[in-house]
Amino acid sequence: MNALMNDIEVIKTKHSKINEVDFDHLSFGKTFSDHMLECDYKDGKWQAPKVVPYAPITLDPSAKIFHYGQSIFEGMKAYKDGDNNILLFRPLDNFKRLNISAKRLAIPELPEAYFMEGLKALLKVDSDWIPKNEGSSLYIRPFIFATGKGFHASPADEYKFVIATAPSGSYFAGELKVLIEEKYSRSANGGVGFAKAGGNYAGQFYPTQLAIEKGYQQVIWTDDNTHEYIEEAGAMNIFIRINDTLITGPTSDRILDGITRKSIIELTEKEGIPVEVRKITVSEVVEAAKNGSLKEMFGAGTAAVISPISGFGYKNEDFDLPKLENTYADALKKRITDIQTNKVEDPFGWRYKVI
Amino acid sequence: MNALMNDIEVIKTKHSKINEVDFDHLSFGKTFSDHMLECDYKDGKWQAPKVVPYAPITLDPSAKIFHYGQSIFEGMKAYKDGDNNILLFRPLDNFKRLNISAKRLAIPELPEAYFMEGLKALLKVDSDWIPKNEGSSLYIRPFIFATGKGFHASPADEYKFVIATAPSGSYFAGELKVLIEEKYSRSANGGVGFAKAGGNYAGQFYPTQLAIEKGYQQVIWTDDNTHEYIEEAGAMNIFIRINDTLITGPTSDRILDGITRKSIIELTEKEGIPVEVRKITVSEVVEAAKNGSLKEMFGAGTAAVISPISGFGYKNEDFDLPKLENTYADALKKRITDIQTNKVEDPFGWRYKVI
Repeated sequence: MNALMNDIEVIKTKHSKINEVDFDHLSFGKTFSDHMLECDYKDGKWQAPKVVPYAPITLDPSAKIFHYGQSIFEGMKAYKDGDNNILLFRPLDNFKRLNISAKRLAIPELPEAYFMEGLKALLKVDSDWIPKNEGSSLYIRPFIFATGKGFHASPADEYKFVIATAPSGSYFAGELKVLIEEKYSRSANGGVGFAKAGGNYAGQFYPTQLAIEKGYQQVIWTDDNTHEYIEEAGAMNIFIRINDTLITGPTSDRILDGITRKSIIELTEKEGIPVEVRKITVSEVVEAAKNGSLKEMFGAGTAAVISPISGFGYKNEDFDLPKLENTYADALKKRITDIQTNKVEDPFGWRYKVI
Repeated sequence: MNALMNDIEVIKTKHSKINEVDFDHLSFGKTFSDHMLECDYKDGKWQAPKVVPYAPITLDPSAKIFHYGQSIFEGMKAYKDGDNNILLFRPLDNFKRLNISAKRLAIPELPEAYFMEGLKALLKVDSDWIPKNEGSSLYIRPFIFATGKGFHASPADEYKFVIATAPSGSYFAGELKVLIEEKYSRSANGGVGFAKAGGNYAGQFYPTQLAIEKGYQQVIWTDDNTHEYIEEAGAMNIFIRINDTLITGPTSDRILDGITRKSIIELTEKEGIPVEVRKITVSEVVEAAKNGSLKEMFGAGTAAVISPISGFGYKNEDFDLPKLENTYADALKKRITDIQTNKVEDPFGWRYKVI
């Protein structure tokens, strides 16, 4: 495997687009780097990955991705430090989760070397695409989807694994007001909510649109049975600070095992911030908002790292969160991004140096 | 709209594949006709549909279909009767359901004429692809998916609507033994289970594979909260006959409003067969299997019309269904396919003559 991977094939583009990019004004995930990693599953196995020019993908109209939603993805970021080292954050955790998602979606699992060595080869080729500006990074999108043909509702026999990258600015702009959902839900017990499956996201768009029409930016997902337990914030895990204690729900088959989420838990435990991993009820949060013990709420995920929530709506009532001077959200975000960008020591071994 | 539709553009293939097809030995959904209907949503509206040669579709790697599962579909069939009339079955119901799915998946709704006139134009061009053999039909697959670019988890700004067709034989071959699911589930309250969304199907593949490994062919889905209520059979609605009464679960946000399902309800009501639309518990079915009152179980859907179930497994116990002489399943399947293929009168107005 390693012999193969050292020789990973690289086909370079003849027309770099990098001079067209304004690295000082990047949006999120709209500008794509010159190359991508491509790897096909056929004849019962994953073929050798290649770095190729970023280019359109051509599929038969009966390709199962169009019909049966067999797709999974990951989100990662690459940074450059002052010495031009290329840095990743816990990349093996993304690889492992990709295969956890793959299994649940009946997609063949990917060899670790294809992911890790393929990713490294891609980042070396597109090293100049990694932004150095504060708050920017190279967003990395590994994804697998069903390319096999046929209208029969069964797993495909062919798949494509791609890693594409996009130099990106911040994910959310401005205030984040959220609506606690009372009707719609994002996942079922025994479903695919814990996986980064494409279908989990499509199902969130319409309820989110309804929330946006009411003046919120995101939905707080609750359990589908009672809508009494808080599960996720949009496409992020959620943290709630009551007095000085940070609380987040336990992972389950409905809740994504977020890498930023678990990093926050490990960080707070190490730094002596009280953290509880337990179910949180909506009534507990509403009660805390009313009696003043609710100090912070924030979403946590790779794209935004930490997104502070400024207020929430529930049953036609709006609750504002206090504007604190020193928030856990700011401190944790700074600590994590400082580790990611090699500004501070990394006692956890999370940082991963590509070159 | 109609003026436009009368002039629907048709670009014919120069290389028909029809002579390569063995119409006496068709599988399901693996052979594709010469043409397809294509219609793009961009600049805020659906553009005029065109009939074009069946050909690969090219997409940017960041197209949202690959990442966020924004896709919906329908399943229909076209038949030819002895006079070479082209016949559809309740096509407006498929159109309406496509738009119900579209709304839930935040996909722009499609104008009725684009669907109906586009479909008719396609069927006229590929009229020779409609099989005449007993048990065969032209399977029709309308589908819409997100083509708009970008890694932001939000609805796409561009979509593609395609109708592709496949001359097909029967969907299931052989015996259908099912496993009543106790762990996995296909949909959540407030989720997208009622929609024909791609992601609903991908999530079923892995639990179905596990059932296949245990010697079953399909899963009977139960509610995600208690696994005590029977919901669907694989990708079909389910009917259960206890003594002489046919029972099916009510539609909900978890259960697809199947066109074959509702046709069966209307047929049985008209013909005086007792039919109940109500929740069915697993324990009721197991009890009926034990005391001999369970006479039949079958799945109902467009692809298979009606699929009789020969037995089921539950909590490591197997239950065989009786082998009856005159089943509801056989009688209803014959009645529906006779209506579909113009062998009998259609008192319901379900049959739709294209030409």
